[in-house]
Amino acid sequence: MQETWLVVGIVSGLISLGVAVSLYRWVLRQDPGSEKAQEVASWIKEGATSYLKRLYTALTLVAVVLAVILAIVFSFDLTEVGIGNVTMNVGHGLEIAVAFVVGALSSAIAGYMGMTIAVAANVRSATAANNSLTKAFRLAFNAGSVMGLAMVGLAVIGMSTIYLITKDAEVVLGFSFGASTLALLAKAGGGIYTKTADIAADLVGKVEVGIPEDDPRNPAVVADNVGDNVGDVAGMGADIFDSYVASAVAVMLLGSSLPFAPGESLKYTIFPLVLCTLGIFASLLGLQFVHVGENGRPGKALNNGTVITCVLFAVMVAVLVLAGGYSLGVLWATLAGLITGVVIGFTSDYYTADNRKPVQETAKVSGSGAAINIITGFSYGLVSIVPSVVGIVTATLLSYYLAEYYGINGVYGVSVSAVGMLAVSGMIVSSDAYGPIVDNARGIAEMAGMSDEVIATADTLDSAGNTAKAITKGFSISAAALTVLSLFVAFSQVLAARGVTITISLLNPIVIAGMFLGAMTPPLFSALTMLSVTHNAFDMIEEVRRQFREHPGILKGTEVPDYASCVGLAAEGALTSLIIPAFLAVVFPVLVGFVMGPEALGAFLGGAILTGVIFALLMANAGGLWDNAKKYIETGQYGGTGSDAHKASVEGDTVGDPFKDTAGPSLNTLITVMSLVSSLFAPVIAAFHLF
Amino acid sequence: MQETWLVVGIVSGLISLGVAVSLYRWVLRQDPGSEKAQEVASWIKEGATSYLKRLYTALTLVAVVLAVILAIVFSFDLTEVGIGNVTMNVGHGLEIAVAFVVGALSSAIAGYMGMTIAVAANVRSATAANNSLTKAFRLAFNAGSVMGLAMVGLAVIGMSTIYLITKDAEVVLGFSFGASTLALLAKAGGGIYTKTADIAADLVGKVEVGIPEDDPRNPAVVADNVGDNVGDVAGMGADIFDSYVASAVAVMLLGSSLPFAPGESLKYTIFPLVLCTLGIFASLLGLQFVHVGENGRPGKALNNGTVITCVLFAVMVAVLVLAGGYSLGVLWATLAGLITGVVIGFTSDYYTADNRKPVQETAKVSGSGAAINIITGFSYGLVSIVPSVVGIVTATLLSYYLAEYYGINGVYGVSVSAVGMLAVSGMIVSSDAYGPIVDNARGIAEMAGMSDEVIATADTLDSAGNTAKAITKGFSISAAALTVLSLFVAFSQVLAARGVTITISLLNPIVIAGMFLGAMTPPLFSALTMLSVTHNAFDMIEEVRRQFREHPGILKGTEVPDYASCVGLAAEGALTSLIIPAFLAVVFPVLVGFVMGPEALGAFLGGAILTGVIFALLMANAGGLWDNAKKYIETGQYGGTGSDAHKASVEGDTVGDPFKDTAGPSLNTLITVMSLVSSLFAPVIAAFHLF
Repeated sequence: MQETWLVVGIVSGLISLGVAVSLYRWVLRQDPGSEKAQEVASWIKEGATSYLKRLYTALTLVAVVLAVILAIVFSFDLTEVGIGNVTMNVGHGLEIAVAFVVGALSSAIAGYMGMTIAVAANVRSATAANNSLTKAFRLAFNAGSVMGLAMVGLAVIGMSTIYLITKDAEVVLGFSFGASTLALLAKAGGGIYTKTADIAADLVGKVEVGIPEDDPRNPAVVADNVGDNVGDVAGMGADIFDSYVASAVAVMLLGSSLPFAPGESLKYTIFPLVLCTLGIFASLLGLQFVHVGENGRPGKALNNGTVITCVLFAVMVAVLVLAGGYSLGVLWATLAGLITGVVIGFTSDYYTADNRKPVQETAKVSGSGAAINIITGFSYGLVSIVPSVVGIVTATLLSYYLAEYYGINGVYGVSVSAVGMLAVSGMIVSSDAYGPIVDNARGIAEMAGMSDEVIATADTLDSAGNTAKAITKGFSISAAALTVLSLFVAFSQVLAARGVTITISLLNPIVIAGMFLGAMTPPLFSALTMLSVTHNAFDMIEEVRRQFREHPGILKGTEVPDYASCVGLAAEGALTSLIIPAFLAVVFPVLVGFVMGPEALGAFLGGAILTGVIFALLMANAGGLWDNAKKYIETGQYGGTGSDAHKASVEGDTVGDPFKDTAGPSLNTLITVMSLVSSLFAPVIAAFHLF
Repeated sequence: MQETWLVVGIVSGLISLGVAVSLYRWVLRQDPGSEKAQEVASWIKEGATSYLKRLYTALTLVAVVLAVILAIVFSFDLTEVGIGNVTMNVGHGLEIAVAFVVGALSSAIAGYMGMTIAVAANVRSATAANNSLTKAFRLAFNAGSVMGLAMVGLAVIGMSTIYLITKDAEVVLGFSFGASTLALLAKAGGGIYTKTADIAADLVGKVEVGIPEDDPRNPAVVADNVGDNVGDVAGMGADIFDSYVASAVAVMLLGSSLPFAPGESLKYTIFPLVLCTLGIFASLLGLQFVHVGENGRPGKALNNGTVITCVLFAVMVAVLVLAGGYSLGVLWATLAGLITGVVIGFTSDYYTADNRKPVQETAKVSGSGAAINIITGFSYGLVSIVPSVVGIVTATLLSYYLAEYYGINGVYGVSVSAVGMLAVSGMIVSSDAYGPIVDNARGIAEMAGMSDEVIATADTLDSAGNTAKAITKGFSISAAALTVLSLFVAFSQVLAARGVTITISLLNPIVIAGMFLGAMTPPLFSALTMLSVTHNAFDMIEEVRRQFREHPGILKGTEVPDYASCVGLAAEGALTSLIIPAFLAVVFPVLVGFVMGPEALGAFLGGAILTGVIFALLMANAGGLWDNAKKYIETGQYGGTGSDAHKASVEGDTVGDPFKDTAGPSLNTLITVMSLVSSLFAPVIAAFHLF
């Protein structure tokens, strides 16, 4: 009976993937536009492909090394050679290694599909904006849906198949670890890439030479456009993919290790896969409701889609729980997660919406200079932590106590609430991926010299994308927090299942030491990625200057600049910058565990979760706020474009860029990877550690 | 026998106070300078006095209300009226209330003495700089010593006397709570005041009207100079006073509640007072070694004084431990704290020194604009967290395990290490208070139109102050961290002594919820104080504009501006801005305790300590770094004063101002107050809480 659900899951994943492929083809069949527009788009496509090639080559190497380590570590029982005294679940090294590779591959495929479709959709959406808002919107949204549906489809197929074959939640953990490691590197690498190119293009182009943004004479301009795609689309897709999988895995680990009634264990182990399956159906239905008339508001259409999907999902879960004989506790936990996710999403919007106090106040003080703009925006960014933290706390307590009330383990309830938030990711990612596509469509329209009307239509589409983005960010950070919290408990359950009980008491000095080390990791990670951005941008600036100097024809417009060299520089810089951050994410936690023991490692994770969530919220919201304060001034407020207030707000926006696009978005994934690698290595660490 | 130590403590405190008073008189006897200089100084003095009057009036009200609450709460046993089941140490309500008031009063007196002497020393030091560097240095340093010695003297007298009378460590806790509450409000209020005036004076004066900094025609200029005194001198003194007392109290609480061998309990309870006594003697001796020749380097003289004091102190403690039959564990714990404090202090210097990579790199990128300067400085600020956190972790683990190794409770060892760091505060505060005095001397020299040579001498004195300041900051933040960690454990010991065992396990959802709420408090506190600065600065800018408009004689130099109205505005703004931060510090923890229970409260403190320490380090170091990057450019690097790089670095410095002078320095005190109020109310909360 329960196995049937796994098969249903695989089928739903295949349907989702099928719809994604047919939408992909539909998008490719649309008018690719004028020769000029196609030429611009082809530069971007080439750059993006070249970056992804380098990225995936580097990551293949990393994945192979990690897979070999996993295969070896999980094949032997250390107690047999006289090390440690904890019996591990030995002999599944090969399964875990294969699952790890499949997870990494799935994440890569989802990112690759998303990016190729985005690159294709950019130019087609710009072309469609020539004669119809409805058409341009449909094109961009369908392209976004390719990403959303491919992602959830691949995830559910992967998890269900692995569990169907191995019946071992820890092997699914290997899949999740693969997906998250790839996501982290793709996200951080893309984030460094995109802002390196952005800053270099702006500083030489706009400031030194005085040519407009997106001017094709700027050798860095293609790298900049590529960056939007690799950072926003591919990175973000990989990011939600990883939270989605990790949240389900946490429930599966708890379901398989907690003492459920006989016969109930399997039911509650695969419950998250059932939720994901229902989420896929709800998303497929919800997508049908997203359309916009010629004079309609794209933002409203996107929000309607999200709300309808959530309602459909809630109804489906209620029916499932009542008909399937599940505890009412899991229904309430799911709803607690879902509702909190939506509430946090809309609350986050308050801090970045241009008709609210934070953005308006920041815009107002900008007349007094960049510093005051930055202090104000930063402070509101700090305040914006509050509603999300309160939301996370509420969801945790509600799902815990409601689950306990209905006779289900409370921690299991918390982990279900995270899945409840993320199950509708198919819809959420679709509206989120729409954003960078219309953003790029606007850039292409400008570079290809399209009319002002087209650009105005593109602007309308773009502003809706920003709201969708703000909501998704609140959603994804809090979902990651809940996911990581449940992974954290899963970590201790994995140990308990091996007979090792740990008590992570805050009154133990090694626990305090572990917490401090963990708490320092996310800020350090942020700092390293941001320093890479400024460092790499300086290298690229040198290259742009060299091209202008050695080829005077470029600025006259008689010579085509060497876009590829800038693209290559950005890619190489981003990839070498990843070495220390990758170490912090994957090796540092394991090192802490082996040296200081499992309790310190648990505390390390606790500390990292706290500061990870806080810095992620601060950076995402402050970044969005500065961006919108600038845009608000550009509508003519406080002197409008060109005024002192505007200049100050541009500086604020530039500070916000690496906050919101480089450092901030990697933090969810960082704490997820840290939790996954800790849970995976928990038995080994319990068996063998120094102190 | 042990009571003798208390008497020795009181005597050493009286000696320290006596030396402070005689130095105070010596300073006042020095040449107060020209009539012009005296006039300028008198404006500052009046402004400072008027601010302190308002501050202390407001604080008296707060103190009276809190004292009454304490007197009532700790006089009755709730179990007698059928509430709760934990017997409290009843009947000492009046003692605690009186101790609280005495603590607040001592802190106020130390701050007041420091500020009046600083205001008197400013002008005298400027005058002395006319003919002798040695004399000017001696004057400023002696004035700083008044602050340092008064502070440690009052603290040791207060704690020893209270313990001698009541023999109850919890009453001393009341004293500490009073000192810290006053320190927090003085520090945060002073921080808001000083930056409000600074920003307003700069924005209208330098930017709008184009008159130089410190120009007497600017109505906000006196408020700005007053701010330097109330923020830096009075605030900082109150701040270290509170850590000093709190660290000793934590040891006393542990000493009196942990199960020591019979007869040893009193010995280890008053041990921190003995350490403080030795620290006073070491400081008094160390101060004698601080002098500088006409061509000498003031920075070196200050560092020598610190190192000599530390060595003397270490020797004294070694003799005490060996001769007094103490466990060797407390010697190692003291040394672990002392050495780590010094190492952290000098490491912090790396991130703010202008001959090191962080400052130089930030200066270098400034040519590309304010945003790049700010991203780079902020990132290095994040990196600067690492060495201090590693230091705190090392000190914690070393002192814990060394104490345990020698048969002393490990947590007791950790708390001793914090006292080890802070016992030499007499010396540390003396060199730190020197900084703002010479800074102000420079300002007065400029306002009173003294010669360029005098200003150059003042500059030499000033740069030494900045290094001393960086070292003290690293020192005080890490000492606060250790103090708060031991208070945190003391909190659980207070409960254990009442028969309530708490297990703050990270696997408990209410603990996780508490940690998240705690972790969000320091960032929120920072944000509120910084938003107050920009908000209040805008009000003051309006007032300055009004004066210029209604009295055109001011700018012509024929009319004296109304300095007092700006001073009043800044004071009023700062005091009303304190309401919500005070609530967060004092009421919020108690509320969390009463609603969510003692375990959640413990976790709340844990979360607050983590983010409090991290944000304190980030803000202090990033602020110092931006300041020095600007100064480095002003030495002629990257285009020097007036270049684009310089303009960018000025913006960075302005962002750093509220970081390092408003939000950052209050955070230590915030977490100390939160820990103290929690420890104090722990028995009541254990007896009665909602969940």
